[in-house]
Amino acid sequence: MVLTSITLECGETISQVEVTYETSGKLNAERNNAILICHALTGDAKAVGDEETPGWWEGLIGPGRYVDTNQYFVITSNVLGGCAGTTGPASVHPESGIPYGADFPVVTIRDMVQVQYELVRHLEIDKLFAVIGGSMGGMQVFEWATSYPDMMEVVVPIATCARLSAVAIAYNDVGRQAILSDPSWQRGHYYPDKGPINGLSVARMLGMLTYRTADLFEYRFGRRLKDDKGDVTQFDSTFQIESYLRYQGQKLVDRFDANSYLYLLKAMDSHDIGRNRGGIKKAIESIQAHVLSIAISGDLLYPADHQEEVVAMMQKAGKNVEYHYIDSIYGHDGFLVEFVKIGPLVESYLNQQYVRVCKRSAASY
Amino acid sequence: MVLTSITLECGETISQVEVTYETSGKLNAERNNAILICHALTGDAKAVGDEETPGWWEGLIGPGRYVDTNQYFVITSNVLGGCAGTTGPASVHPESGIPYGADFPVVTIRDMVQVQYELVRHLEIDKLFAVIGGSMGGMQVFEWATSYPDMMEVVVPIATCARLSAVAIAYNDVGRQAILSDPSWQRGHYYPDKGPINGLSVARMLGMLTYRTADLFEYRFGRRLKDDKGDVTQFDSTFQIESYLRYQGQKLVDRFDANSYLYLLKAMDSHDIGRNRGGIKKAIESIQAHVLSIAISGDLLYPADHQEEVVAMMQKAGKNVEYHYIDSIYGHDGFLVEFVKIGPLVESYLNQQYVRVCKRSAASY
Repeated sequence: MVLTSITLECGETISQVEVTYETSGKLNAERNNAILICHALTGDAKAVGDEETPGWWEGLIGPGRYVDTNQYFVITSNVLGGCAGTTGPASVHPESGIPYGADFPVVTIRDMVQVQYELVRHLEIDKLFAVIGGSMGGMQVFEWATSYPDMMEVVVPIATCARLSAVAIAYNDVGRQAILSDPSWQRGHYYPDKGPINGLSVARMLGMLTYRTADLFEYRFGRRLKDDKGDVTQFDSTFQIESYLRYQGQKLVDRFDANSYLYLLKAMDSHDIGRNRGGIKKAIESIQAHVLSIAISGDLLYPADHQEEVVAMMQKAGKNVEYHYIDSIYGHDGFLVEFVKIGPLVESYLNQQYVRVCKRSAASY
Repeated sequence: MVLTSITLECGETISQVEVTYETSGKLNAERNNAILICHALTGDAKAVGDEETPGWWEGLIGPGRYVDTNQYFVITSNVLGGCAGTTGPASVHPESGIPYGADFPVVTIRDMVQVQYELVRHLEIDKLFAVIGGSMGGMQVFEWATSYPDMMEVVVPIATCARLSAVAIAYNDVGRQAILSDPSWQRGHYYPDKGPINGLSVARMLGMLTYRTADLFEYRFGRRLKDDKGDVTQFDSTFQIESYLRYQGQKLVDRFDANSYLYLLKAMDSHDIGRNRGGIKKAIESIQAHVLSIAISGDLLYPADHQEEVVAMMQKAGKNVEYHYIDSIYGHDGFLVEFVKIGPLVESYLNQQYVRVCKRSAASY
């Protein structure tokens, strides 16, 4: 889909916004079975994928899966500012004919959601059944519930927050500084080169440490050495955990644009559903959707406390909210791994709410 | 003090090793009141300092303080590989006449302790009363207790570990990669230039995030903005927490050598009192000192679990060990801040043990 133009929260306008999306399953005659999936920092529109290239949430969504595409119509789009098909800093500016680079305007989670809203309307869906996402995807879920309260029946924010905490902003800034101080960044105008691959790799290595738990690293790697050299060598890596991290850094560099990484970090930093709405409490008042909130143990970035605080605010405001805390050695990344724990919660909540929606439509005839 | 030569664990020899140290208080006639203080990663020999420039542990040690220099003779030396007076990579190689840089041999915590042992003998002390340290200083304490079991009466490891965990190795490697990928590092031969100041700054920013707790950052900074620009700007920092971190990064760059940072990270990585000793359990068997072990809540790098595990091993091996867990919003950095909590524990343990030592000497006459 191409949007002629979109005006962002910062006041700037982007024209010719390309939006890449995936759909799975079929929109039913009542057009009330659409579920929007929102992806995390380095995710893309391929949540479900296909047999050849399974998507990043194929353990959760698909035919006969917890989110059953035989029943639901599932839409996933790449976020604005991303680098997997939707317009972002690596895209060519329609007027200048060269990539935006650092001239791409600042985007917010709210802007991403606005683009998704346009996509949903483009698909001629008046109301989504659900919006689901984890991590940065969960931020979009929270933003959807407050920006377009009457546009969905259900929201499922997982391992996420209603506003980014100081420590998460801080981790983002360390990753950002690693990228900005890489001379290959060239103030954001490095295309067609790969740009700050060292900086991006360091940022990703750091990311990995916040996405998983110390216990998992200890269990998987402990102090095991890379080879038989012994553990006293020069600057090179010595331990398996180091090789693993560097491999993860390299893997991201191969598939992700550093500028997009910077723009999405900034979008997360500014994430606060209460921004210009008189604070979180006030913003929550507008929520109409039923909320299934899931937090994961050992999540360094989005600890359960915060989600519990938000759930308590919702309950106080008389909202329909169900909360679950799942235990996982994966910590934050549990939302991409713990399908057996998360799946049944999502499945039963969705189905129960879908029955409510169908009954309501039946009654209205 | 200058050591003519020292042979390291890696097999290499360094000659003309300068050792910078500070002493406070007076060695008594029995020469049994000496306490050695071991410093952490970016610490130095100025633990006590003076009125003009108070040391990094002056809240704990000094005349009338918890570790009372009216009673004890307190020695602190800068570690081997450091950059505050003791020989390290920035020192001039006595033969080549230029700084070692990356030609400096790999040092271990065990090597640092060997140098400290030589210092203690140089001061004509046959047996220390105590060895005390936190973080990397605590690693030295553990290493002292196993390398020279009959050289001290008491050891006090604080917020530390008997061997570095996978996640701590991982955090070190992210910091390391930030430095190594800074072109100004020049493979370690950057003197007399300042070298990889951007990389070192990023490494320090990351360090700060592991030294303190999310709760502290939230309480101190929350989402407070740097100025009134609003929270949607370009790549520049937006939040107070970011300015704070960058300031901390800059501050370290001004006082610390990047190569030293790399060498000390590597020394921590290799830290394992069980290395070449048949494992930790076996290493612990040799300990003769009385042990006061102190862990701090919310310590991301050296969680209490690990210290408790080591304490349990010691107890099983019939060692004299007392363990305390203190609560602190500072997390790991609590060892540099929570004097009111740590001080009385250290004071009463030292005094009680000192009485034991004095009684024993009296009985032996």
